[in-house]
Amino acid sequence: MPKAMKVDQLSQKEETRINPQPNILMKKARTLPVYVCRNIWKVGKDDPRRVIHALKVGVALTLVSFLYLLEPLFEGVGQNAMWAVITVVVVLEFTAGATLCKGLNRGFGTLCAVSLAFFIEFMAEETGRVYRAVFIGATVFLVGFMSTYLRFFPFIKKNYDYGVVIFLLTFNLITVSSFRVQNVLHMAQERLYTIAIGCGICLLMSLLIFPNWSGEDLHRSTARKFEALAKSIEGCIDEYFHDKDDKVSENKLDGPIYKGYRAVLDSKFSDETLASFASWEPRPTRHCHKYPWQQYVKLGTVLRHFGYTAVALHGCLQSEIQAPKSVRLLFRDPCMRVASEVSKVLVELAYSISNRRLFSHDALSDHLHEALQDLNSAIKSHPRLFLGSKNGRKVTETKHEKASSAVALPSLKTDTSVMLQWKSNRIADQPKNSSEQKQLRPTLSKLAITTLEFSEALPFAAFASLLVEMVARLELVIEEVEELGRAAYFREPTASDELTIKVKIDNMRHNENSHDLHAHEVHRIVD
Amino acid sequence: MPKAMKVDQLSQKEETRINPQPNILMKKARTLPVYVCRNIWKVGKDDPRRVIHALKVGVALTLVSFLYLLEPLFEGVGQNAMWAVITVVVVLEFTAGATLCKGLNRGFGTLCAVSLAFFIEFMAEETGRVYRAVFIGATVFLVGFMSTYLRFFPFIKKNYDYGVVIFLLTFNLITVSSFRVQNVLHMAQERLYTIAIGCGICLLMSLLIFPNWSGEDLHRSTARKFEALAKSIEGCIDEYFHDKDDKVSENKLDGPIYKGYRAVLDSKFSDETLASFASWEPRPTRHCHKYPWQQYVKLGTVLRHFGYTAVALHGCLQSEIQAPKSVRLLFRDPCMRVASEVSKVLVELAYSISNRRLFSHDALSDHLHEALQDLNSAIKSHPRLFLGSKNGRKVTETKHEKASSAVALPSLKTDTSVMLQWKSNRIADQPKNSSEQKQLRPTLSKLAITTLEFSEALPFAAFASLLVEMVARLELVIEEVEELGRAAYFREPTASDELTIKVKIDNMRHNENSHDLHAHEVHRIVD
Repeated sequence: MPKAMKVDQLSQKEETRINPQPNILMKKARTLPVYVCRNIWKVGKDDPRRVIHALKVGVALTLVSFLYLLEPLFEGVGQNAMWAVITVVVVLEFTAGATLCKGLNRGFGTLCAVSLAFFIEFMAEETGRVYRAVFIGATVFLVGFMSTYLRFFPFIKKNYDYGVVIFLLTFNLITVSSFRVQNVLHMAQERLYTIAIGCGICLLMSLLIFPNWSGEDLHRSTARKFEALAKSIEGCIDEYFHDKDDKVSENKLDGPIYKGYRAVLDSKFSDETLASFASWEPRPTRHCHKYPWQQYVKLGTVLRHFGYTAVALHGCLQSEIQAPKSVRLLFRDPCMRVASEVSKVLVELAYSISNRRLFSHDALSDHLHEALQDLNSAIKSHPRLFLGSKNGRKVTETKHEKASSAVALPSLKTDTSVMLQWKSNRIADQPKNSSEQKQLRPTLSKLAITTLEFSEALPFAAFASLLVEMVARLELVIEEVEELGRAAYFREPTASDELTIKVKIDNMRHNENSHDLHAHEVHRIVD
Repeated sequence: MPKAMKVDQLSQKEETRINPQPNILMKKARTLPVYVCRNIWKVGKDDPRRVIHALKVGVALTLVSFLYLLEPLFEGVGQNAMWAVITVVVVLEFTAGATLCKGLNRGFGTLCAVSLAFFIEFMAEETGRVYRAVFIGATVFLVGFMSTYLRFFPFIKKNYDYGVVIFLLTFNLITVSSFRVQNVLHMAQERLYTIAIGCGICLLMSLLIFPNWSGEDLHRSTARKFEALAKSIEGCIDEYFHDKDDKVSENKLDGPIYKGYRAVLDSKFSDETLASFASWEPRPTRHCHKYPWQQYVKLGTVLRHFGYTAVALHGCLQSEIQAPKSVRLLFRDPCMRVASEVSKVLVELAYSISNRRLFSHDALSDHLHEALQDLNSAIKSHPRLFLGSKNGRKVTETKHEKASSAVALPSLKTDTSVMLQWKSNRIADQPKNSSEQKQLRPTLSKLAITTLEFSEALPFAAFASLLVEMVARLELVIEEVEELGRAAYFREPTASDELTIKVKIDNMRHNENSHDLHAHEVHRIVD
């Protein structure tokens, strides 16, 4: 019954796909080839290693098909050559680590399965045919149950899932076919040979010819995440202090700021996968130590923890209640200094990781601390601001407090009237298309919140507080990178490293200055 | 060479695993069986469907092995029965959607491969043996290259990756073995039959016998995420306003608050996987529409966006600069009201989703709005606070501003002296074990930040501002759930639904009141 429904659903799907609108279909048919070609080009251009990998798979398959095509080779292995083909198709993966993981899992799984199968074979040898069939059936059930249950263990799932599947597969094939075929030992032996040939070709292709290392990918992606965060934070600060009000609503869930921290926040799964593959990769190190891939995963966690503040900071830009421009301009310089120090630290950490070079913890922290002090004194020098400018201008003495809350009352009333108006609009709109309606009306909370008169400095206070929190979390990141440096034996920085860092930071400063000039110009125009 | 290194590394690993310390090893050996048994029990207890699934796999394998074990069946399919076994092992997955996805991919991939293989066979039929070998080799290379390249396309990767692998596998097996075997058509046909038998058993097992639906999993996990967030936010607020200072440092990266939002933030991959499997599942619906699984993914994204504010709120608890208790107590009630309204809305949304019931947008928003108004008036009625209590008490007139910044200067000096002291300690500590050192000393930024004297209300302002931001983002979540309700034809709420919700909310209120009582008691004791 569900199958029929499935078919029904599929045909329905097909229908909607085929007959949306004739003219739209024509247009699509015309643009499709261009779209496909562009996509094919893009996939290769984004990462040229993909083309190389595809070529490698082609070559490996051709090599393995020689087992059939060349007479002397075929005589050696016979129909079992099939297993070499299967192995190459299934095992050869994009990175060396993934291939090794799959290959070793396959090898180990097959070996275990063969051993167990022979043990079972040995036990059932002397019995009658019917008893033997029952025995084999029971074993198949039991092994099937146990190995499937085993796959639910997180540790097994993470590292040996494929091995268990292959174990189950091989065990069943051998045990079951042993019931019909006489010389199972010979068959299993030949299969092992051909699987070994297949694995050998895969390892040759993935380890020796243009290898892609998962470890390298993880290393580079970690460094890139730091850079992305630095850009994201710079972008946030720029947008907050420079006049780009018109663009705020546009980049709600895309745009460079979002993409920057998004890359960090969504990296958990890929980090863990890469680290688990990387742990399979042989790695020549100077100190003959195990390379600390798990430390990268840990660093990723701490970096995500740091990234959440970047999200919250971005939230300040998108928030419906905004600090007035006057308040923002007042604290522009110290805030920008803190943020630029933060992103400078991130850039330096990125450089440290990507070049496997130690860094000076103190030098980084000192600048951060100075920038924080600046912000602190700036905030202290304007205590009046945190009165909320409207009340602040009117009330300088505490006795007027009651008056100020009386002033607030009418605005509450306006609020409610706006609410009522919105509601009546909503009821009138009811019959309209709901999606249209959604676009036309601002959301209720937008109305509600923008009409609220929170202390004007409140949003800025949140912004400043997030900056401070960001610095605190950055400290955890710095420590984690230091830990990584120790565990992975990063080398001491040389003079040229320091020069490179200096140039990078100077470049950043230059960019900032040009931003500043631009901002001052905008400021002048606005004034 | 790399293989040798790998072995080297492995043996090194083995060594450290085998000889850590003899007595530790003994202890481990004694506790291991208990640990393993407990784990086996736990995996089954966490989700009893796992046991059922493992049993199902066992039964399916036994069924498929009948093809070998029973004489009449074996005569029908012969050695090709192997393909049925392979299919069952590889295709039968935990949920119906995953099985269908794999099964249909396998079927479709095989069909395509067989068609293409026969086309190639047809083209190479009339040629000489050597030319034919070259032709087959070239085709294998080309098809291998193209289908591997195809797998890098995100759309293919997401939906049809397995199908492409099976296509490549089958194509190679047929094309290459056609060079040796005469009657390939017959062989391919028999294989198709047995693969169909295997797929049939898998579909039977996964669709009809205790089926697990990916869609149901996605549905339930979405509702659970709302509840987890509600608990997380309640926990944050409780901790912020009740005296639990001693526990703050403990639950840095675990504890219920962290787990609550963590479940939401890390759900991207599992959401997308479940939704893609769910889209393969046949689903009986009243309105004969396609169930909007992608809307769940979208809702998940918006919910994560909302979750970031929960993280930031939690960050306020962990921050090194904390608002003084007096400030917190002042705004306790309106803040707690906003937070409890937020979590009430989350609980109601969770109920709405899990029972597929519409809800009243206006009723939810009205309460939120009222709570926001309360908070607004509370903040307005204490404008003095945002002076920063230290300065605020001394300076009531604007003329004293300069004096206040002069007051701040000595603290800056103390700051620097703390820094210097910390540094000298650090240099003295240098020769010590670095990890020990790390535990002994507080981090630099902790020192730096706690000695800074930010306006005391600043951290609270951040907290309040985040609460407001949270409400704004909650509005987006509400809209997305509304959209889901429309797309999935949720039913209108009945009287019993409203009763259930009321009971739930009353329960929450009751909990709150007991919290409040508790808080007042604590308050009295502190005073």
